Order: sequence, then structure tokens, then C-alpha cells
Amino acid sequence: MPAKKPLILVTNDDGITAPGIRALIEVMKELGDVIVVAPDSPQSAMGHAITISDALYCDPVKVKENVKHKEYQCSGTPADCVKIATQEILHRKPDLCVSGINHGSNSSINVIYSGTMSAAVEAGIEGIPAIGFSLMDYSLTADFEPCKKFVKSITKNVIRNGLPPGVVLNVNLPKLKESEIKGIKVCRQAKAYWKEQFDKRTNPQGRDYYWLSGEFINEDQGEDTDEWALANGYVSVVPVQFDLTAHHFIQNLNSWELND
Amino acid sequence: MPAKKPLILVTNDDGITAPGIRALIEVMKELGDVIVVAPDSPQSAMGHAITISDALYCDPVKVKENVKHKEYQCSGTPADCVKIATQEILHRKPDLCVSGINHGSNSSINVIYSGTMSAAVEAGIEGIPAIGFSLMDYSLTADFEPCKKFVKSITKNVIRNGLPPGVVLNVNLPKLKESEIKGIKVCRQAKAYWKEQFDKRTNPQGRDYYWLSGEFINEDQGEDTDEWALANGYVSVVPVQFDLTAHHFIQNLNSWELND
Repeated sequence: MPAKKPLILVTNDDGITAPGIRALIEVMKELGDVIVVAPDSPQSAMGHAITISDALYCDPVKVKENVKHKEYQCSGTPADCVKIATQEILHRKPDLCVSGINHGSNSSINVIYSGTMSAAVEAGIEGIPAIGFSLMDYSLTADFEPCKKFVKSITKNVIRNGLPPGVVLNVNLPKLKESEIKGIKVCRQAKAYWKEQFDKRTNPQGRDYYWLSGEFINEDQGEDTDEWALANGYVSVVPVQFDLTAHHFIQNLNSWELND
Repeated sequence: MPAKKPLILVTNDDGITAPGIRALIEVMKELGDVIVVAPDSPQSAMGHAITISDALYCDPVKVKENVKHKEYQCSGTPADCVKIATQEILHRKPDLCVSGINHGSNSSINVIYSGTMSAAVEAGIEGIPAIGFSLMDYSLTADFEPCKKFVKSITKNVIRNGLPPGVVLNVNLPKLKESEIKGIKVCRQAKAYWKEQFDKRTNPQGRDYYWLSGEFINEDQGEDTDEWALANGYVSVVPVQFDLTAHHFIQNLNSWELND
């Protein structure tokens, strides 16, 4: 640990009052100086949305009494929170950005839809080491206590080792007691997808509408995947990049007759 | 070209009446059977958002007279449009999904924020070959005519060659006359970012609010990047993947003392 305490920006996508971010703040206060800038309402499944057509509000808020750190609630998305925190509140880059702890998994393909991870990725784009944490429990009464030891260990490692440019961490925690969790496992993103199901209904005016639901399909049996780790009692850590180039396909593409 | 016409799903993020999707539909009608499922209102900068807390509407709509293909407007995001088209309208996977032509660039890091590309990525996740097209011109009166030849060539190649699992294409077109465009270039995503600027104002009730704006910073001088191609008069084609794992960093991460 550096002599000077790191400045840690805490955000999430479930909103500033969610139990998950409260647990994350508690852990981070043991590791550095904390500032919280988080959405004023839940933003789940927002992907990497940013707010360009609406004005953004960002106001100081007191969620708990007798806390020393400052908290701000923002009317925007998780990515907006990171942008406004850096630019308008801190006027500097924090030393670390952590997002979560999300109520619900962001493993495998869920990283794409995740507001929690969009905050971490936004921080990464700005050159800030960043981690997104998610617990495999959607419940508002989820127990975040077993997470804390692992969240602390991973965060300490990031503070100590840093992260290379262009990489952030996606951490998912199984819904288990601390004693049941086998440890932390570095993984790759499992190849999985959601098989959509739409629940079609008719509103009182006679117009059809749909609710999106779906079934998570994991066809990837690899034991080096986040899904395997979580199913087998491990905390999964996937290094995530935002250079989306499929470098392996460039050579093949160059053989296409694009300019004929 | 296969004897049987391919079924092409057309969507976008600027909304179903935008001139860009109209131009894309015209090109696709020369290449296959077209179905349009697009947002009923602009969804720019939505990232990979999906709608889980609101009901979705999806209704047939006639945007132009005397067209043979069917069009539907959806109250959701571009990713929602792909999901609902496949599941509730087509009841099968289309042979191809094209998104755009976006009014504005989705090159380099913009792929992360892009609703246009989120539709293509969503299709890719579902195993549908997909392409996102964007023109570097935000104007509603942008001229899409010069795009058509290149859009057609790239789409024909995808129909002919297919795309490997896990890869979709991000195509950006420079704002130039057709005669000025030098050709199509396969590229990697340039390493670039937005340097945020917030325009702080006070509303009539005395509360501060912000407008997000920013300056695009490209520090990547590589001549194999999409930014270079576009700046030098080429159409850029970047193969995009949604396995976000930073595979190159896994070995290093495994040397960390995560379980101590």
C-alpha cells in the first residue's frame, strides 16, 4: 500500500441507496479515501449508455448519518457518473474506480448489458484502474457480508499492482457463505447468451405489449470460464478490454473482394 | 449470391423515420427480402441497453406508401428491436442483420456507446451475421447516396462469405462524394477517447445542471486504424467481437496474490 491513501471513486447501477453499494463503500473506506457518485435511481441493463439529450443533475446527498466521505447522486447512467465525478466533482482522476456491488450476476455475456461494468469500462477508457463487482443474488435483501473479504483482497491487489492500459476487472461473487467460497479464480468470459422469451399481453386499450424475459444458455463447458468458477464455488475475475477489434479475423477479411 | 433470397433484418438507433435507415433499406431491397424493426424514436448513445423494467410496444407501421416489405416500430432500444424481431415477428433468425446507416460516426471508442452497433452485436450474440453502418455526418439532411455502393459491396461480401461466430462488422463511411472515396479498408479500432466537458447551468429554480459535451482525442497514429482510414478518404471496416476477455492479461493476473 502506498503511504498516501488512494482516492477511490465508488459508483454502481442499482442506485446510491442500494445495499450493494453500501457494502462496497464499507470495504473501500478501509483501503482509501472514498467519494461516491452514483445514480439516483436504478439503471440496470443500461449497457454503456450515456446521457446526451437530457440535462444531468448531480447533487450532494446524505444517505447515512455521521459519514466523513462525500456522496453525490446523479440523474444519469453509471457511465455519466464516472464522467461527471472526474470532470466536475474531483477535478482530477481518482486512483481507482469501483462499481457495484451489483445485485445480480454480470458474468459471461452479461458484461455487455451491464451498467455496473459500463462504469468500470468508462473509468478504464479514461485511464483509471477500475473494477466492477457483482453478487449472484438479485434480492434487495442479499447478504453482502461474505463478499467483503474477497472484494478487499482483489482491490488491494489492484492498488498494489495497477492494471495495464485498456484493461478493467469484472468480478462476480457466488451466492454462498464465506466459508463455502473456495477462493478467487482468474477466468475468461464464458460463451453464453440469453434465449429470449417475450411475455405478450394486451393493455386495457387493446394494444399488445411485451415483457422481455429469457433463459440463460451457457454452451461453454470450459473450466477456465467465469461460469464454471461461479458454479463451482469460486469468485470469478475476468480481465475485460474495450478494444473490441476481432484481431484474429483481420487477415481473413483482407482476403475479401471488398473493392471489386 | 444464394438462389434463395436472404432474409435481411434492418434496424437502427436514430429511429424508423431517419433518412439513414431509409437509404439502408433501399440498398438491402436489392440484395434480399427486407423486414424492418426499428425504434420509434431516437436511441443514440444508448450503448447496449435493453428494456427490462418497462413494457415494450412493437407495432406495424407504414413509413412510406407502396412498399412490399413489412415495417415495425418498437418502443425499445436497438438491442430490444433485434430480440423482438427474431422472437415475436419473424419466429426465426434472419439471414443477416444490418443496422444504420447511423447519422454520425461510430468509429474507434464510439463503438462502446453506439446504439447502432449494439443492434449488430445483439444479432451477433444470437448467431446472426451482422453489420453496423455509420456515416460521419450528424445532420438530418446528410447525403447517404455516396454510401450506397460501399454498403452494397460489404453486405454482398458478408452474404457470400458469412462471418465467423462471435464477430460482427463495424463500418464507418467518410462524409465525401462517391468519387472522392478511395475504397474500403479493413482496420482495427483506434485507441481514442472523449475528453469530457460539462456545460454547467442553473435552472429557473436555482438548481445546477449539466450538459455533457466533449472533445474526441485520438492518440493512436496507426495507419491500420479506422480513424486513419476515415481521415484519408476510406470506408473503414472493423471486425468487432463481444468476447471482452483481455486474454493477454490472464497470465499476469494469475501471478497476483489474490488468495493470500
